[in-house]
Amino acid sequence: MSNAFNTIGVIGKHEDPSICDTIRALAGYLQQRDIDVVLDEEACKLIPDHGFKVADRAGIGRQSDLAIVVGGDGTLLTAARSLAEYDVPLLGINLGRLGFLTDISPAEMIERLDEILSGQYQTDERFLLHSYIEREGESLNHGDAFNDVVVHKMNMARMIELTTYVDGKFVNAQRLDGLIVATPTGSTAYALSAGGPIIHPNLNALALVPVSPHTLSYRPLMVGGDSRIEIVISNTSPNNAQVTCDGQTNYALVVGDRIVVHKKPQPVHLIHPMNYDYYDILRAKLHWG
Amino acid sequence: MSNAFNTIGVIGKHEDPSICDTIRALAGYLQQRDIDVVLDEEACKLIPDHGFKVADRAGIGRQSDLAIVVGGDGTLLTAARSLAEYDVPLLGINLGRLGFLTDISPAEMIERLDEILSGQYQTDERFLLHSYIEREGESLNHGDAFNDVVVHKMNMARMIELTTYVDGKFVNAQRLDGLIVATPTGSTAYALSAGGPIIHPNLNALALVPVSPHTLSYRPLMVGGDSRIEIVISNTSPNNAQVTCDGQTNYALVVGDRIVVHKKPQPVHLIHPMNYDYYDILRAKLHWG
Amino acid sequence: MSNAFNTIGVIGKHEDPSICDTIRALAGYLQQRDIDVVLDEEACKLIPDHGFKVADRAGIGRQSDLAIVVGGDGTLLTAARSLAEYDVPLLGINLGRLGFLTDISPAEMIERLDEILSGQYQTDERFLLHSYIEREGESLNHGDAFNDVVVHKMNMARMIELTTYVDGKFVNAQRLDGLIVATPTGSTAYALSAGGPIIHPNLNALALVPVSPHTLSYRPLMVGGDSRIEIVISNTSPNNAQVTCDGQTNYALVVGDRIVVHKKPQPVHLIHPMNYDYYDILRAKLHWG
Amino acid sequence: MSNAFNTIGVIGKHEDPSICDTIRALAGYLQQRDIDVVLDEEACKLIPDHGFKVADRAGIGRQSDLAIVVGGDGTLLTAARSLAEYDVPLLGINLGRLGFLTDISPAEMIERLDEILSGQYQTDERFLLHSYIEREGESLNHGDAFNDVVVHKMNMARMIELTTYVDGKFVNAQRLDGLIVATPTGSTAYALSAGGPIIHPNLNALALVPVSPHTLSYRPLMVGGDSRIEIVISNTSPNNAQVTCDGQTNYALVVGDRIVVHKKPQPVHLIHPMNYDYYDILRAKLHWG
Repeated sequence: MSNAFNTIGVIGKHEDPSICDTIRALAGYLQQRDIDVVLDEEACKLIPDHGFKVADRAGIGRQSDLAIVVGGDGTLLTAARSLAEYDVPLLGINLGRLGFLTDISPAEMIERLDEILSGQYQTDERFLLHSYIEREGESLNHGDAFNDVVVHKMNMARMIELTTYVDGKFVNAQRLDGLIVATPTGSTAYALSAGGPIIHPNLNALALVPVSPHTLSYRPLMVGGDSRIEIVISNTSPNNAQVTCDGQTNYALVVGDRIVVHKKPQPVHLIHPMNYDYYDILRAKLHWG
Repeated sequence: MSNAFNTIGVIGKHEDPSICDTIRALAGYLQQRDIDVVLDEEACKLIPDHGFKVADRAGIGRQSDLAIVVGGDGTLLTAARSLAEYDVPLLGINLGRLGFLTDISPAEMIERLDEILSGQYQTDERFLLHSYIEREGESLNHGDAFNDVVVHKMNMARMIELTTYVDGKFVNAQRLDGLIVATPTGSTAYALSAGGPIIHPNLNALALVPVSPHTLSYRPLMVGGDSRIEIVISNTSPNNAQVTCDGQTNYALVVGDRIVVHKKPQPVHLIHPMNYDYYDILRAKLHWG
Repeated sequence: MSNAFNTIGVIGKHEDPSICDTIRALAGYLQQRDIDVVLDEEACKLIPDHGFKVADRAGIGRQSDLAIVVGGDGTLLTAARSLAEYDVPLLGINLGRLGFLTDISPAEMIERLDEILSGQYQTDERFLLHSYIEREGESLNHGDAFNDVVVHKMNMARMIELTTYVDGKFVNAQRLDGLIVATPTGSTAYALSAGGPIIHPNLNALALVPVSPHTLSYRPLMVGGDSRIEIVISNTSPNNAQVTCDGQTNYALVVGDRIVVHKKPQPVHLIHPMNYDYYDILRAKLHWG
Repeated sequence: MSNAFNTIGVIGKHEDPSICDTIRALAGYLQQRDIDVVLDEEACKLIPDHGFKVADRAGIGRQSDLAIVVGGDGTLLTAARSLAEYDVPLLGINLGRLGFLTDISPAEMIERLDEILSGQYQTDERFLLHSYIEREGESLNHGDAFNDVVVHKMNMARMIELTTYVDGKFVNAQRLDGLIVATPTGSTAYALSAGGPIIHPNLNALALVPVSPHTLSYRPLMVGGDSRIEIVISNTSPNNAQVTCDGQTNYALVVGDRIVVHKKPQPVHLIHPMNYDYYDILRAKLHWG
């Protein structure tokens, strides 16, 4: 991760025309500050005649010292996964609705970027999960998640049975709707709806959060962030179990599949303005005011 | 509902050979007591040369003064739905594992039946739900549920948005994994896993239990048992919403579908031995001991 | 309960000077409409030279056809308990912050009263609980509650053990911080914080909501509104158990005390404007918007 | 912490005669193995003519290479707090009922001790909390906790208002019954009843678990184990707020008091047999079987 932001990639929410004005203003501002701007090829499809360099996600990853993401938390989740192999910090600008990850509003964007480009910023290290399936000696469906890996029932209103291991130790075999493996980042997303705790981003931990478990004493379980989680499909009706990363990519599972989840070695760095405060955002998002 | 049990239908768990001995013993005992026995045609497929009358479910409904169900709670749920049009009380015998509805064990079966056939029993009136879908002026997928009607997301790890009305009044529009409309009978089934309260069977009430709601203050809501519940699919990805009755029958939903749920006019009567106590079963099933 | 409101009692929040302007405006308006106004002696202590008739709570109860309560939900709870013996409906005016029971704001007070005095209103029947302690053959500490009767631990961070009966049937013996018996009215108060369901005011039901139970499967239990609840203090350290009605009146308990709770025979009638909608208030208070 | 256990202190549950046989058997066994035995002066009051050395808790701390605690988890919590200044590992023997901390039963005691004394054991490092009150420039009521520090309401059924800071950052100001600061060890004690997650003992984390919070979105919050927690009493009725360590020591609080909680620098070492498995105990204690 470079300290000077000479080249900045700009990534926008997929197929959302409302980002165009913000991206134009942003790219124009960066250009004025003599920064090389690279627009994400997806984002700029909606912006004709912009005159900036364009690259695919890998190109952005290779060339940029910073990636600015314009959109919601979902856009930033996707960007973080796609840039995971590159050492590019991310900065999130929301489109008017405060996000946990996209914490800068368009109205304050220029002021905050002035600060950040002058070196006044906070760095916030987060981690991604890597997940894959072990099936009959093969490993399938490798994927990354910033929020969560969820093993869940699919099209039937019938519970599945999962057998869970942490660092090789048997935890339990339980019937439930699903099991969420959440990062601290994901603790305020789906895991929270399912009854999990809020986890401060600095804590190196994973939450295993059961969704509608049959056994009422099966409560969210916190383990170390470097734990290896294994979830075996011990019982399910056909076509009823699935694994999903960040609510995006699905893969159908069969009895005997072993879903392995562990921390991805490469961290994600988020850049925040100096006035960023995690608890401010928590209070605003959870209406604690 | 007749007071004397001259003809008794015997229903068994579908395709489970472990019920054969219990059904043989039960039917033999009833025959000895000069009771006309009618075996369910499904149950007796596994029992060769039994020599008893056989009928389909409708035949059992028309002929029987009592239906004895051998199996688990799921078997009794199915029997209750299939006999809903007939005025036949139900008696549940479990296969060794105590059920909320199948509260007599095979070991005590004869002793309890002696009492019951001599008129020593409790009657427990429960109700079923009826549900259907209103779509473009038509009403579709009529079905009954003894435990619950669940509107839920299907094959994606993405929430659906449901708009709910009770007796014509707007309750809320919320994103969640699903919404359970549970009877008191169903309150100790799926609804309990999703965070709903336990409801005494005598209470004329319905529980609306949200599953993993995005809004944390959306808590289980209790309304009168005669309420008309309407749940409108206000947002969903394609092929992602479904309605399910008692975890059995599924029907795919599209945006704009209105699922209507109300009490079925015909009650279900369960027969229990004199020593039956709801709280005994609750303590045993929930390990309150 | 009379249909014409010829005499109206006006009750205000205890020792709160912010109610004076609202009470003056209210009483003046009622006088203009040729209604006999009786001010609560507590409320008018803060209002010099008002010139209205004054009465104690019993006097208000005997003389009034309607009692208008100015304050928060707590003020209305107190008024409902103190007028329980009289057949006086209650109307709640809040002081700017919407209440579940005080649903009319000062700004709309005159407009809503115009409607109500012309006979355009809704009547909402609620019930109170009556509670007392059985100790060594005596019955002590009789009291009423509109929200809840709570048996709870007191000055030690140690759980108490309670044995609970409903209609004479043993429910369980459990260690916990407390047990709440809540009316539908009380379901959105303390019981909600402790994990209880929301109960529609029309439902004739009680919720038994355990507070921090040792046994995780001890979940809120809904029973019929006419049930007799008995809670026996089966174990506690000295000076550690207490019973409280509506968070107001406390009474210290010892091992062996039996707290009896049942519905009070006299109902409470709330008067609401025609545009009152329970779900509107629920959405506003729970931020479901 | 020494590696050879030449001198072993033996601590028993306070005033419980049922420990005598186990302590006699234990001390006799240790003597046979040429180990110096020091009995806790409290424990041996109930055992006449034992012939062993006796010491107070400090003496046990100074002399012992290992302290064996006979009793329940509460006995071990007390022992851990009282030996916190000394570098003495602890081994727990229960009296028949499996504990989270006292994981060896009397029946297997000798066999497990054979292993442990021959060097076959696991060491499990835990941490204590230290807590004190800042009031008007003074610091009061210093104390330690192995499970939890709880700030809670006392003799009134009225919520208190607490303002919480983590590492100097404002988290929230909320009305509630209490706030639990729990260690991983304490996560399966009171914090679990109040809705907190299970925390693996290896995780360096604290859980802040609100008890019956008024705001339903105030959910358990996980922070780093080295965080400094400050809880300010921002509102309470008189004589209504208290701080309690491990459910034992109480101290009355007034508005403005600041309760500071942080990890104690000296760790606690638990000794377990080789076959000890945290998840085994979790499954047994939570009836996940």
